Amino acid sequence: MGAMCGVFGIFGHEEAAHLTYLGLHALQHRGQESAGIVASEAGVLKSYRAMGLVADVFTEGVLSQLPGSAAIGHVRYSTAGSSHVKNAQPYQVSFNGGQLAVAHNGNFVNADEARRELEEAGAIFQSDSDTENVIHYIARSREPTFEGRVVDALRRLDGAYSMVFLSADRLVAARDPVGFRPLVLGKVKGAFVVASETTALDLIEGELVREVAPGELLVIDAAGVHSSFPFERRGPRRCVFEHVYFARPDTKLFGESVFQVRKRLGAQLAKEQPVSADVVIAVPDSGVPAALGYAEAAGIPYDVGLIRSHYVGRTFIEPQQAIRHFGVKLKLAPVRSTLRGRRVVVIDDSIVRGTTSRKIVKMLQSAGAKEVHLRISSPPTAWPCFYGIDTPSRQELIAATHGVEEIAKYVTADSLAYLSLDGLMRAAGDETGESFCAACFSGHYPVQSAQVLAVGR
Amino acid sequence: MGAMCGVFGIFGHEEAAHLTYLGLHALQHRGQESAGIVASEAGVLKSYRAMGLVADVFTEGVLSQLPGSAAIGHVRYSTAGSSHVKNAQPYQVSFNGGQLAVAHNGNFVNADEARRELEEAGAIFQSDSDTENVIHYIARSREPTFEGRVVDALRRLDGAYSMVFLSADRLVAARDPVGFRPLVLGKVKGAFVVASETTALDLIEGELVREVAPGELLVIDAAGVHSSFPFERRGPRRCVFEHVYFARPDTKLFGESVFQVRKRLGAQLAKEQPVSADVVIAVPDSGVPAALGYAEAAGIPYDVGLIRSHYVGRTFIEPQQAIRHFGVKLKLAPVRSTLRGRRVVVIDDSIVRGTTSRKIVKMLQSAGAKEVHLRISSPPTAWPCFYGIDTPSRQELIAATHGVEEIAKYVTADSLAYLSLDGLMRAAGDETGESFCAACFSGHYPVQSAQVLAVGR
Amino acid sequence: MGAMCGVFGIFGHEEAAHLTYLGLHALQHRGQESAGIVASEAGVLKSYRAMGLVADVFTEGVLSQLPGSAAIGHVRYSTAGSSHVKNAQPYQVSFNGGQLAVAHNGNFVNADEARRELEEAGAIFQSDSDTENVIHYIARSREPTFEGRVVDALRRLDGAYSMVFLSADRLVAARDPVGFRPLVLGKVKGAFVVASETTALDLIEGELVREVAPGELLVIDAAGVHSSFPFERRGPRRCVFEHVYFARPDTKLFGESVFQVRKRLGAQLAKEQPVSADVVIAVPDSGVPAALGYAEAAGIPYDVGLIRSHYVGRTFIEPQQAIRHFGVKLKLAPVRSTLRGRRVVVIDDSIVRGTTSRKIVKMLQSAGAKEVHLRISSPPTAWPCFYGIDTPSRQELIAATHGVEEIAKYVTADSLAYLSLDGLMRAAGDETGESFCAACFSGHYPVQSAQVLAVGR
Amino acid sequence: MGAMCGVFGIFGHEEAAHLTYLGLHALQHRGQESAGIVASEAGVLKSYRAMGLVADVFTEGVLSQLPGSAAIGHVRYSTAGSSHVKNAQPYQVSFNGGQLAVAHNGNFVNADEARRELEEAGAIFQSDSDTENVIHYIARSREPTFEGRVVDALRRLDGAYSMVFLSADRLVAARDPVGFRPLVLGKVKGAFVVASETTALDLIEGELVREVAPGELLVIDAAGVHSSFPFERRGPRRCVFEHVYFARPDTKLFGESVFQVRKRLGAQLAKEQPVSADVVIAVPDSGVPAALGYAEAAGIPYDVGLIRSHYVGRTFIEPQQAIRHFGVKLKLAPVRSTLRGRRVVVIDDSIVRGTTSRKIVKMLQSAGAKEVHLRISSPPTAWPCFYGIDTPSRQELIAATHGVEEIAKYVTADSLAYLSLDGLMRAAGDETGESFCAACFSGHYPVQSAQVLAVGR
Repeated sequence: MGAMCGVFGIFGHEEAAHLTYLGLHALQHRGQESAGIVASEAGVLKSYRAMGLVADVFTEGVLSQLPGSAAIGHVRYSTAGSSHVKNAQPYQVSFNGGQLAVAHNGNFVNADEARRELEEAGAIFQSDSDTENVIHYIARSREPTFEGRVVDALRRLDGAYSMVFLSADRLVAARDPVGFRPLVLGKVKGAFVVASETTALDLIEGELVREVAPGELLVIDAAGVHSSFPFERRGPRRCVFEHVYFARPDTKLFGESVFQVRKRLGAQLAKEQPVSADVVIAVPDSGVPAALGYAEAAGIPYDVGLIRSHYVGRTFIEPQQAIRHFGVKLKLAPVRSTLRGRRVVVIDDSIVRGTTSRKIVKMLQSAGAKEVHLRISSPPTAWPCFYGIDTPSRQELIAATHGVEEIAKYVTADSLAYLSLDGLMRAAGDETGESFCAACFSGHYPVQSAQVLAVGR
Repeated sequence: MGAMCGVFGIFGHEEAAHLTYLGLHALQHRGQESAGIVASEAGVLKSYRAMGLVADVFTEGVLSQLPGSAAIGHVRYSTAGSSHVKNAQPYQVSFNGGQLAVAHNGNFVNADEARRELEEAGAIFQSDSDTENVIHYIARSREPTFEGRVVDALRRLDGAYSMVFLSADRLVAARDPVGFRPLVLGKVKGAFVVASETTALDLIEGELVREVAPGELLVIDAAGVHSSFPFERRGPRRCVFEHVYFARPDTKLFGESVFQVRKRLGAQLAKEQPVSADVVIAVPDSGVPAALGYAEAAGIPYDVGLIRSHYVGRTFIEPQQAIRHFGVKLKLAPVRSTLRGRRVVVIDDSIVRGTTSRKIVKMLQSAGAKEVHLRISSPPTAWPCFYGIDTPSRQELIAATHGVEEIAKYVTADSLAYLSLDGLMRAAGDETGESFCAACFSGHYPVQSAQVLAVGR
Repeated sequence: MGAMCGVFGIFGHEEAAHLTYLGLHALQHRGQESAGIVASEAGVLKSYRAMGLVADVFTEGVLSQLPGSAAIGHVRYSTAGSSHVKNAQPYQVSFNGGQLAVAHNGNFVNADEARRELEEAGAIFQSDSDTENVIHYIARSREPTFEGRVVDALRRLDGAYSMVFLSADRLVAARDPVGFRPLVLGKVKGAFVVASETTALDLIEGELVREVAPGELLVIDAAGVHSSFPFERRGPRRCVFEHVYFARPDTKLFGESVFQVRKRLGAQLAKEQPVSADVVIAVPDSGVPAALGYAEAAGIPYDVGLIRSHYVGRTFIEPQQAIRHFGVKLKLAPVRSTLRGRRVVVIDDSIVRGTTSRKIVKMLQSAGAKEVHLRISSPPTAWPCFYGIDTPSRQELIAATHGVEEIAKYVTADSLAYLSLDGLMRAAGDETGESFCAACFSGHYPVQSAQVLAVGR
Repeated sequence: MGAMCGVFGIFGHEEAAHLTYLGLHALQHRGQESAGIVASEAGVLKSYRAMGLVADVFTEGVLSQLPGSAAIGHVRYSTAGSSHVKNAQPYQVSFNGGQLAVAHNGNFVNADEARRELEEAGAIFQSDSDTENVIHYIARSREPTFEGRVVDALRRLDGAYSMVFLSADRLVAARDPVGFRPLVLGKVKGAFVVASETTALDLIEGELVREVAPGELLVIDAAGVHSSFPFERRGPRRCVFEHVYFARPDTKLFGESVFQVRKRLGAQLAKEQPVSADVVIAVPDSGVPAALGYAEAAGIPYDVGLIRSHYVGRTFIEPQQAIRHFGVKLKLAPVRSTLRGRRVVVIDDSIVRGTTSRKIVKMLQSAGAKEVHLRISSPPTAWPCFYGIDTPSRQELIAATHGVEEIAKYVTADSLAYLSLDGLMRAAGDETGESFCAACFSGHYPVQSAQVLAVGR
């Protein structure tokens, strides 16, 4: 699944599909393009997948068609070009071992090669997704048990995955040895739950048991949870960008509060990149924690300078007579009374292409800001991600081709500064200097084949 | 594809998808559940499939997303239990030989066995349909050419098929050696067309070249049409029920006008089963040609005794206070002035469960008919079909468990008579006594494994 | 309501809205653009109106929101320019006398003048429909009773109307003194029903009590049915075109079977306009009864030469490379075996613009007909209708500007002939020569103001 | 229009409907139930209204059907019982003076009486809304000019209104003399604009000209803007609750920045109701400005303790096994790291029924807060509003029937305190003590008839 996504699984609860639906709602920030649930009752799997938000895709009628005490679910991130229901997960197939469903967050770096091999061996593919590779390897495995087949399949693939599998009588969860993408184990009223983030447990009144460890395989069936570590040890190197941007701030990620980490990023940024100013504001909502941290560390008042609309739909029709900052303006509105005549520090989590940052800076200036100092709570994003976050190619990343000075000029800010990689690591709680994957900032990819891919782009 | 369907394919026309859309509309009577088109442009296949009628599924926007000069399409018959978009055709997959799409009318009698074998060899299945077997065999074939793979695959399967395949650069059409289901070759403005029935050619202003022969394989590419007969000769035994009911009356089927054959069935029925009466009416629309034939041969006036509504939707909500003949009444209304005080011969093409016939007879009686003589323009339907018409199990076929006298009593007709099998064959133009498959009437299945299946039901 | 429509009302049945829904389905041929129902429970009226067919507009959920033992309903004919839900009926308003709903089939010829007067007196209009005039007059009436207000209102308007009104505690039905549009009174299980045609009674298992007489007002309440004749006597002159085309053939109209009248039209046409030919066919479905009558009277065999598709949707997308007779071809297909080499008489009920007739004649010729003789079972349609059938302006009616010879040439028929006005009247059962309105054929309008309108167009 | 709403109007811009669409998007917070636009071109008005959000209701196709250089629009607030498209605005009618459309924010306190009078005079009503009264009075007025009619109509009605009217050639805007609801005049590229809030001007790159004064009537036509004050002077007393909650924080309201006023409310609250605590948090998003003000004034750090979800749909399906705080939990999630072991001040803008506050307090406690001190940035809401905010009846307002201590106990807070009415007025910038309507807090209604209504409930 070549995009950021959310996965959820539950075993042993009579309202399995319904709790999956709520869990997916809590993970909605990880993917808004499509949603799906597969539930298992008496050994029979039933599925429903569609384009759209969880609350729109699942009605009472649809949920009632998904009975059973075990279920898995998936939300998929919107990406250009492959927006088609055939790519919506979980996938459900029948094979020699019976029925099987799978939901995947992550990305296999050797997916193209694996697909070629499988096709040469007679496999057919119905989607664009690398997740189909796993299913084929499972179906072709000679291992006698379902979990044995899963291990066999995943050993043939290289990359990032936090996956949940559902068969007639068990739920299997797997996390790659590097541990890129998050995955946690929880409990709710005697049932076991796996989910991308703890926020899904909170909504359904579950309790966190522990993080699923990098390289761990969990088999959950009527007898309970069985843990094993069948994959070659590597890493771990968890994705630091989950802390910077992707996870929900109320989630506990890799043992840490995301909100607190983000505040520390802001505080560290204040130390590294101080500036004389009257007010610190955030690009809402993602920039708020770092802005609070920056303000506190810098001793500059925090205030609200941009208001986020709750009603931004998929598409807006632009008038012929162009409106400046259209797009950004539909989503964000400046608070003039906060900005007028002030020297403003504005905190954002990252800059991708630079076009949105430019619109925001200009919007602040139009609203009367005397100076606009843009501070980014992570280092320059200069390298694409091959492990499941849908970043553009290198050419499109402004930090891959331009220096900080040039970017500052492009976005028309009075000053621009990024957090240092070292500062990021310290604030994120890295003690060994090797806890995290920061390839998108450094270009050092933990998996060899990705290094090769990066050079080619 | 275990159900009656319509297929269409075109190669070499710049509006390929658009003509496929029109062709499918002309074949709509063969399947109203789902519709789909796959088009090929510059070696890339694009598809759209959805539940519903052709006119509703395809909009201008959808068609514009299916460019290219080659396309295939499919309409699927509504059957209980498997009404899900995953069963909508054409299927499109990628495999070792590139991209492939397939549309299927027919049924493989050894599909379950083939599926088990394929699953044991590592294949995964995403639909309930036996058509997926063909795709797997194609993908696993060691033949070097696309058409070689198709032949290899079809040789492993036993049953009824009229199929069209689309690859990056060619269209392949195949018809099983027994020739159960119809398939014709046509031309329109230099492009070649294959379709289930000639009525599809008429709508797009194409001309009929000839019937695709039983056991024939056509490869259509830039060089033209190549014909071969790669399958073991058997039969042919075309489905006589196409003449009785399924084909559109304006179609030319197996070299004969369906309308004329149906009139001959009625005339033969009049000879075999005369009755003293005042008027001959039809159950519209399918019974009209046979009723005209009966009336002429019997010298009794033909008239309209039942009016068919044009506005019957999918579902109607029945009131709590039951209405007699609800369902039939929404579709048919009696013409009292034709019926009152008359001795009526009513012609229908077949009786399946008997419940609808009973409602119709009672409706005619309520409208004042003095006598109701039900005449069926085919023999008793006593055996299920395994070649692509979705008939119920033997237990549900009233003629499998009841004699003609008993059925007459059940439907409350003053008399009931069927056409003889011999009379059917003669009227359908059978000279050898072996041109047609009439297994649904006789229980003699042209393919051995179906004989076994029939015993088991 | 300036268009052909169907109305239905029921009082005293616990499933009032549900039976109205079925009644409207039976009247669907009178209007396919919009459908609506207003039901009354405990003095409170609730309504639902939407664009589309009855079966699509009303779901189980919608019907359950329309409780009560009295209801009225309406289906509206599709007309260019005013296709908007604000014109869907029944209208429901509150006024000084409480709540009121109304459904209207017909047309007021002095509607524009009445509207001007009402606007001058302070009335506001929310739709384009002349039905709003009636509501305003009711609301402004000084009469103490509801039925008194209705009479007061209708006396101010001139034209054609068959209307049903629903108030908190009664149902009122009114038919104009000329009796243009049909309206019948029926009973079902102790409840009274009014409907445009008897076919609506048949579907709900009601029985016909009698035609509502021209100029009659029915008040139906808990005490039963009260009849009165409060309007100035004129006519009656029922619309003969209902017999020719609009009513369902299974309906009993103005005391006669529509089907039998149409057969008589065909027989009379054969007497007046004989032709030497091999076969008589109909333009289905409306031309079938007259074709049967023609064939019988002429002693020429009747057969099926055109097949009508059941799947014609609202819109079809035409390919760039024009298809001949597109539009007609989607709806009708020729039966070549009936036509080839034959001299064909084809019967249609009327010619409006001539374009469709031309396409049909050419289609028959293309299918091999040696000669095509077009016979129309009514006189030339040369004058617009102002009483509720949506005909084009005079300029668009081909018979208003061209002679029969010219029309024959335009439609490319070997011969063309119409039924005489005299023959039509005789066949329709007119004894006095004054039973029917035939203004569309003769230009003699029964209501004076319409005569004036006709000159102006 | 008995509910909070947003209105917009523009005259003299070639993309009038398109800018109205954007303006309504900026006003979406004032009403999410329905949206509508009426545009005028060459003296002809065209309208589109539907249930739903602006971005969903209006597509490119719909907007292209609304040509012209003048337009008005409306968004309607969701209220129980009257959720029906017939209540969606703007209303459009034709009357003696031509065509007319109207959009209304406010409420007439003598609406029922006026409706009775109008009905007695023969008027009919198609909606539940008091806005229809205005239209009837306009239609019945004897004044020769359109604006004369509007004034005549509004003089007969008593209450709160900010309204825009569109006729064939002019746009009229009116604000009641008390000035309850906001309304501003702006300009964009030579065109004049009126809107409920300045944020609508900001989005379309317009500039604020000035507030439309209480009691002012603006007539905008080809000649420019004409101002007059035709209504009896009263007040003004602007709605203080707009400052407390309803307006968007980036709006400039009654000459003041809403954001700054809210901060001052928080600061005043800190002075009046201090508490010893570790952190100040807001109920997002509406409580954020007051929380910032409180924190600053109290010298306690501001932090984020509750995260608001962006994906809350209309309806969520609750599981059978009840989840605590379901509903609130779907919308808000606690940030445990901010709350655990802390004494928390949580700021909200108001308490209506108390049920949501109780859920929030309990959620904070479950997340580990040691103490929860609830502070409300307005006085107890003890009286219903009759001027256009849809508040429940007195019985449902917890502050109408319970003291602060009792409410504190009910919501399970360690302490609860409200801002004083005096403090509210001071913070809102009231100098005379009579600038604002605060009837919802005080029970003193500026319009006499409302006083009577309040007693009756």
